[in-house]
Amino acid sequence: MERGPVVRITDVAALAGVAPSTVSKALNGTGSLRESTRAKVREAADRLGFVPDATARSLSARRSFTVGLLSTDSAGRFSLPVVLGAENALVGGELSALLATARHDPVREQHHVRALVARRVDGIIVTGRTTEPREPIRVPMPVVYAFAPSVDPDDASVVPDDATGMRLLVEHLVALGRRRIAYVGGRAEQAASTVRHDTLVAELAARGLELVGPALYGDWSEQWGRRAVDAVLGRDPGGAVADGAAGGAPAVDAIVFASDQLARGGCDRLRERGLRVPDDVAVTGYDDWDVMSLASRPPLTTVDMQLERLGQRAAELLIAAIEGEPARGVERLAPRLVVRASTLGDG
Amino acid sequence: MERGPVVRITDVAALAGVAPSTVSKALNGTGSLRESTRAKVREAADRLGFVPDATARSLSARRSFTVGLLSTDSAGRFSLPVVLGAENALVGGELSALLATARHDPVREQHHVRALVARRVDGIIVTGRTTEPREPIRVPMPVVYAFAPSVDPDDASVVPDDATGMRLLVEHLVALGRRRIAYVGGRAEQAASTVRHDTLVAELAARGLELVGPALYGDWSEQWGRRAVDAVLGRDPGGAVADGAAGGAPAVDAIVFASDQLARGGCDRLRERGLRVPDDVAVTGYDDWDVMSLASRPPLTTVDMQLERLGQRAAELLIAAIEGEPARGVERLAPRLVVRASTLGDG
Repeated sequence: MERGPVVRITDVAALAGVAPSTVSKALNGTGSLRESTRAKVREAADRLGFVPDATARSLSARRSFTVGLLSTDSAGRFSLPVVLGAENALVGGELSALLATARHDPVREQHHVRALVARRVDGIIVTGRTTEPREPIRVPMPVVYAFAPSVDPDDASVVPDDATGMRLLVEHLVALGRRRIAYVGGRAEQAASTVRHDTLVAELAARGLELVGPALYGDWSEQWGRRAVDAVLGRDPGGAVADGAAGGAPAVDAIVFASDQLARGGCDRLRERGLRVPDDVAVTGYDDWDVMSLASRPPLTTVDMQLERLGQRAAELLIAAIEGEPARGVERLAPRLVVRASTLGDG
Repeated sequence: MERGPVVRITDVAALAGVAPSTVSKALNGTGSLRESTRAKVREAADRLGFVPDATARSLSARRSFTVGLLSTDSAGRFSLPVVLGAENALVGGELSALLATARHDPVREQHHVRALVARRVDGIIVTGRTTEPREPIRVPMPVVYAFAPSVDPDDASVVPDDATGMRLLVEHLVALGRRRIAYVGGRAEQAASTVRHDTLVAELAARGLELVGPALYGDWSEQWGRRAVDAVLGRDPGGAVADGAAGGAPAVDAIVFASDQLARGGCDRLRERGLRVPDDVAVTGYDDWDVMSLASRPPLTTVDMQLERLGQRAAELLIAAIEGEPARGVERLAPRLVVRASTLGDG
């Protein structure tokens, strides 16, 4: 392994012809030195490629310039983009990110929280696997919750604005002339299923429309997406006929799925039952998870929750809090509608 | 936000009735103190819930107890499990992990490397998006390369053992009586395509068998997996017939795909062409990426590269190097064969 040489503060001091403590003052901008001395030290440091020791800097500044990224997740589907967005913003702010993954283990989370406190991080960003509200952590530094909000309204949280996402989908479907819309959720008890459902119903009502049939809940798998299509069409004489041979339009002209995985399974099953997407039934997903939304046949119209921006926003709120301007309450980040062939067709 | 109180070393000193420097010595196990004094300090620290300052500890120990996790990746499909495995092992070793993602940007990588050096990390683990060998980083501390090996044979690298993975697949297919095996790779220039191909050919030759037709290369998408099936069957009279109606066995009885995404697309296309998996054609994938391997119809027989263990192993090698016992060369981590219905059927 080839290693670069370590340049020490004493090397810079020797080259500049000053004491090591003078080098420290000159590079940190502290103490009272002549400008010519500072310039001489800076030049020597540049020539040697001297990298100031961040550990020493943190002791003198009473800040560690380090932030903890505490994730409860292990799979990382949702928390990873949040973590990446936060890390990106922190790097821009000259902060380093300490990664701590708790893997749904409360004991492990406690261990991580203690370790982050021991490291004297300037603040902590807490991310979750779902948007379910969570208990806050108790630490003596600022905390911002991203994706999974804190149950404490005095805490600062940033979450995706699911209501806006669903409103964008309804506007899009209605503008395309769809009126007979069914809903397929994931797990019934989760906010990602219920908030999207409730908003869908309210937005349809605002346009004088009603959801076709009861909402269907299952899990978050493609398999459930396929079975849900059978359930929607099964209760629907048109669909049952279309499944055989003779034809006849189904009683729904759009199915809103609460995730891309569900919608992808739904598209597969609709095709297998002889229905065309979107000509017979338009389909929408949620998440814009590319391995699902782009691989789906046809590719999915969906909602991008902008998770990287969400992580970035959490980092911005945390940096503001560290600098003495804490936020409180839940901030909702607007998502983006992504239109593809599952509603628009190839045209 | 509810915050716990900050307990300072002076609080512990006051309760124990000793000087702050004595608290430091007692908790760090340094200096010469009576055992009764140490016990008194520890008891006071426990009662107050005192957390020693890791920054101060690092200055006295000449180690930061921090390791950099440098990832070139942003999507994270492969590097994330490696990072998680490494983080897990580091936590066990009482080390913290500084996350640094370079996103394929050399300037950003340089910035990260400088920041990690400035933090005086004890060592760095470098992960990549692919298994392509990469240029080493030049830093004055130990480095271990995980997933993407360093081109310098003096560096320490841990990579998945693709040759063993392919050997396990061939053994499995041949044991099931498959003899007419075709291969579908991803991008032609990548080691993940070529190593698997070369091993497949060698393992077949060792059993007196030959690959059916030339290897096919494209990209890593499901779409290419589907098209590749057309290419395999198109050059194959049996397959061409089976695609119509009359039947006739295809000239291949197994297709080995270089990834789960490819294999999933392949299964879809085989089914659409009226062929049964595995009765007519057995299918294997690679990666055991659950959203692909489990959602595939049928679920995929595949190879689990054990990426978390790979990250863990990299952390172990790094900790050993930090403690003065560096490794060198490329260590190959054995993968695991995962058998599912795409070769075995439902029985």
